[in-house]
Amino acid sequence: MQFYLNGYAPGDPDVRGEKLPETVDVLIVGSGPAGVLLAAQLSNFPGISTRLIERREGPLQVGQADGIACRTVEMFEAFGLGQKLMREAYWVNETVFWRPSKADRIRIERTGRVQDTEDGLSEFPHLIVNQARLQQYLLDYMRQSPTRLEASYGLDFVDLKIEAEGDYPVVVTLRDVARHSETVVRARYVVGCDGARSKVRDAIGAVPQGDFANHAWGVVDMLATTDFPDIRLKAAIQSADEGNILLIPREGGYMVRLYVDLGEIDPANRESFRHTTQEQVIATAQRVLNPYTLDVKSVVWFAVYQVGQRVSDRFDDVPAELVASRLPRVFIAGDACHTHSAKAGQGMNVSMQDTFNLGWKLASVLEGRARPQVLRTYTVERHAIAQGLIDFDKEWSKIMASPPKDPMHPELGGVDPQALQAYFVRSGRYTAGVATHYTPTTVLTAEDTHQHLAKGFTIGMRFHSAPVVRLADAKPMQLGHAARADGAWRIYAFADAKGERLRALAAFLNDAVDSPVRRFTPASADIDSIIDVRAIFQASHREIGVDHLPAILLPRKGSFGLMDYEKAYCPDLKQSSDIFDLRGIDRDQGVIVVVRPDQYVSNVLPLDAHQDLGAFFGRFMLDARTVDESMGYWVRK
Amino acid sequence: MQFYLNGYAPGDPDVRGEKLPETVDVLIVGSGPAGVLLAAQLSNFPGISTRLIERREGPLQVGQADGIACRTVEMFEAFGLGQKLMREAYWVNETVFWRPSKADRIRIERTGRVQDTEDGLSEFPHLIVNQARLQQYLLDYMRQSPTRLEASYGLDFVDLKIEAEGDYPVVVTLRDVARHSETVVRARYVVGCDGARSKVRDAIGAVPQGDFANHAWGVVDMLATTDFPDIRLKAAIQSADEGNILLIPREGGYMVRLYVDLGEIDPANRESFRHTTQEQVIATAQRVLNPYTLDVKSVVWFAVYQVGQRVSDRFDDVPAELVASRLPRVFIAGDACHTHSAKAGQGMNVSMQDTFNLGWKLASVLEGRARPQVLRTYTVERHAIAQGLIDFDKEWSKIMASPPKDPMHPELGGVDPQALQAYFVRSGRYTAGVATHYTPTTVLTAEDTHQHLAKGFTIGMRFHSAPVVRLADAKPMQLGHAARADGAWRIYAFADAKGERLRALAAFLNDAVDSPVRRFTPASADIDSIIDVRAIFQASHREIGVDHLPAILLPRKGSFGLMDYEKAYCPDLKQSSDIFDLRGIDRDQGVIVVVRPDQYVSNVLPLDAHQDLGAFFGRFMLDARTVDESMGYWVRK
Repeated sequence: MQFYLNGYAPGDPDVRGEKLPETVDVLIVGSGPAGVLLAAQLSNFPGISTRLIERREGPLQVGQADGIACRTVEMFEAFGLGQKLMREAYWVNETVFWRPSKADRIRIERTGRVQDTEDGLSEFPHLIVNQARLQQYLLDYMRQSPTRLEASYGLDFVDLKIEAEGDYPVVVTLRDVARHSETVVRARYVVGCDGARSKVRDAIGAVPQGDFANHAWGVVDMLATTDFPDIRLKAAIQSADEGNILLIPREGGYMVRLYVDLGEIDPANRESFRHTTQEQVIATAQRVLNPYTLDVKSVVWFAVYQVGQRVSDRFDDVPAELVASRLPRVFIAGDACHTHSAKAGQGMNVSMQDTFNLGWKLASVLEGRARPQVLRTYTVERHAIAQGLIDFDKEWSKIMASPPKDPMHPELGGVDPQALQAYFVRSGRYTAGVATHYTPTTVLTAEDTHQHLAKGFTIGMRFHSAPVVRLADAKPMQLGHAARADGAWRIYAFADAKGERLRALAAFLNDAVDSPVRRFTPASADIDSIIDVRAIFQASHREIGVDHLPAILLPRKGSFGLMDYEKAYCPDLKQSSDIFDLRGIDRDQGVIVVVRPDQYVSNVLPLDAHQDLGAFFGRFMLDARTVDESMGYWVRK
Repeated sequence: MQFYLNGYAPGDPDVRGEKLPETVDVLIVGSGPAGVLLAAQLSNFPGISTRLIERREGPLQVGQADGIACRTVEMFEAFGLGQKLMREAYWVNETVFWRPSKADRIRIERTGRVQDTEDGLSEFPHLIVNQARLQQYLLDYMRQSPTRLEASYGLDFVDLKIEAEGDYPVVVTLRDVARHSETVVRARYVVGCDGARSKVRDAIGAVPQGDFANHAWGVVDMLATTDFPDIRLKAAIQSADEGNILLIPREGGYMVRLYVDLGEIDPANRESFRHTTQEQVIATAQRVLNPYTLDVKSVVWFAVYQVGQRVSDRFDDVPAELVASRLPRVFIAGDACHTHSAKAGQGMNVSMQDTFNLGWKLASVLEGRARPQVLRTYTVERHAIAQGLIDFDKEWSKIMASPPKDPMHPELGGVDPQALQAYFVRSGRYTAGVATHYTPTTVLTAEDTHQHLAKGFTIGMRFHSAPVVRLADAKPMQLGHAARADGAWRIYAFADAKGERLRALAAFLNDAVDSPVRRFTPASADIDSIIDVRAIFQASHREIGVDHLPAILLPRKGSFGLMDYEKAYCPDLKQSSDIFDLRGIDRDQGVIVVVRPDQYVSNVLPLDAHQDLGAFFGRFMLDARTVDESMGYWVRK
């Protein structure tokens, strides 16, 4: 046997050094939340070659983020992972606030208790689970996808350059960490999910902007015993003089995480906080918790870190002055774009939403379904979200870290416990991840001309699920769970009172030459693979026969031409309010709700706005009838 | 390399022939539903050596049973598999009935539609999924258990003999199917889950009793297109002259199963039905479905089979006349005990309930926790259930297969469609699997002296879950899901109005010398590992502090002595009725509900019946303080 030609690596030499192909469609750098979410999304497309490279030798095992907003669980449900997350994770049901006791300020006392997530905000709870576990779910999903995608470990990003021409214009240099050898891969697109010190970001000349790191934190995951009664509730705890901690119960019933405030960074000695030991952090926590004890039995993970609140000036390789003349080829996502405090539990969630936003756009463009200009919307949409996050984080961090008001000395300032609790409740929609609102500045989001027809499906915001009953099999379910992470658009047609307009729409979508479903779906593809049409009737499911459904709601699919019975829904009459009432649908006129592949409402239209519907898709999609399907993926002729 | 000494086997010789140890605690013969459920249950006990042998070369891939009653999902939830089943399976929400049209009897028409499972019967739905998938869940569970148990394939049962003495008195001869070699294993206990033609049953001289097979069926799983509107609903379809079919939609949205009645077996030619072809069965189905079409695109699985309604005279090796003098060593379960029609969807469910009944008893005896006499209750309890099943199946089969009454010719007899539908609804609790009722004929089931204190937790029936909120973390959940398949008993203490009796009970259980928890739990084991005490308070979870819980409800466990916060519950005030009302608990007095490891209510006692509670456990459990724990499992001194 001969081996070690391209560098020594430990282990079984029968496991040969991984060699990437010379060209790939999408190269993802970094297997954190943003990277694995993107790889999981792209793994669904057999015609797209994707590689996920990671500098480390294998998957993350422990530590880092743990907060999973309701909105993230909604997204995971599209990957079929919602129930799995719910089973394993801690549920944040209520949050408590502890402040110095009025009677004895060296002791803490509970000053408030609130429901963590307002009723009806999402069908899913707010969860906590180790980032490593969440990433593993997505890695498993990739491996079980049609492309059987696996991450490539031990490969570090060195640099890239973008050529002006060619099918694979991004030339990327990678380094095999174990063998110390370099290799070059050419990609159509590169996405840097390589963290706060992103080398991809540096390579494209994007610059983080905002405050330098000014605050330090210690974080420790532990198994401990305590007489603190709220150890299984999320708790914001502030002492009079010993600082503050954020306590997060963790999965499994025993583990807890403490974020301990280490105070301002010393400008004269910016790295001194790094010498803070685990013992010091735990001792601070113990002092904050007075009069309660904290007996640490096992430290699971410990870190100290600083955070600045910064946003990269752009999230792709095209400088502002070239936006009109050049299309983006390289993107950054997650911590590479935005850094902020961990206290509001947003980081991992916003990072995955970044790439859930980007994934379907890349897939649409690579498959020749959408104009490449769609890729420009990524920076526009996500930069605004990141800037909003930083603004929120500044306010949140300030309020959560402010010293508590001393009732004996109100002149010293500080935050009143009631004011803090009220702020927390007000911010609930934001921290749940459901406040994201894309504006009509891009082709993907329509004006709110017809918003009154569906007041509860706000254009630009995520499609807010509600209970329905599936017509064909009488199954009670959530309408939003019809959405899969398959890159398809969804048209939800809510029936008008007489049902005539719905029927006319169904006929148009199925039969008309200018039906967007016909125009944008290749003849060889399933009729619902690009635009998936579903209808919600007003009558009970027992009053409507499957045999009376229009053809677009009973499509024939797959290699056998089988019938898909899962396109038609009815109100769930066992619920106190039905979906028409819950989401403010005009029962007389009905409505069309157009939903993006990443679950955001793009447009709300009258049921008879056939031409407007087609025109909307025409803004960014490409007519499938002029596409050459003989290629590995669709290529425009 | 040398190999093939003990017989030739195909494949990689580095995969050496499996060799069982000379002795095992439990040898399970057959990896069908009964066998894998038992192996999964026993895999949780590190001190018990279990082997599961299977004649086939690997796990079942396709076909056989598919009906999963609500009760079975409740049981699977104890293995952590409830949500997984619910996600993958078809949900039987409604059942429809089709009969000859009154206007034109050669056409069928829908004559009825009912909700399949009555509201509130179980927190889980009635499901349909391939037996192979369900078994795979349990095989995965075994592999992930503390004992990392794997099935041993390619091993056939030949015979056994039971010696009068010795620790491993059951001497079993097995045959390696590939190598044609025989091997002998000695076991403490053997369980024959080897089907209707059980060789274990024959070896112990048990005899099936009842009717010979008298009816034949064809069953076909298919992918098809049809204009029959109820193709995604469970449908009992009866034509005027072409016979009847039972249509079961299957998992995945496209597949369906048809049971086609092939009529009475010809006594003169009992095997002739076996020549019925797939094409003939499908053609019959097509005629029954007139005027609807059935275009079969792909046959997934096809079988013809006969059924007799038979019950084995006993389920263990001890003949009736020796019950007083000998303890059982060999058991049979599942189809080895009872055979009947497939039409009521009971077989797989009752088979798994057989071994869920037996599993914890074997574990308790093997660990030295319970008197071996407990093993006698298996035959007593499950034989009665099997006999009831046969009685039910005879009635059900007769009614479901009766010709429909012809309104023009009522003198010809037959069943009225309304009568049929009414019978189906009446039988709902039985078919859901929740009608099982063990009687006080064994030590495990108490008299109903105090049943009035908890009218909804019937002694001898399964513990019927209800919604609660967990005190420590405010999590809304099902109380029944506190049960794990860990072999532990559970005491659910529902608080009295003043809380004083509950507090006194908690003190007794924690501190008293004669506390059953102290008596029956070894000093080295976690305090909740044998009898797991949980309490349900009447007040809201916000009104009770974790720091006020009695010690038994905040136990310290595991190698770190961590505190378990999941023992105390409160009513879920967001529900329209709370658990005290739903289950008829006496709010003034409170109540103790004692639940077996297989989730059946064993006893209902007043909160202050401390001595009665201890005496109840003393009927069958062994004092842990006299047990020698130095052995691999506990052995009585």
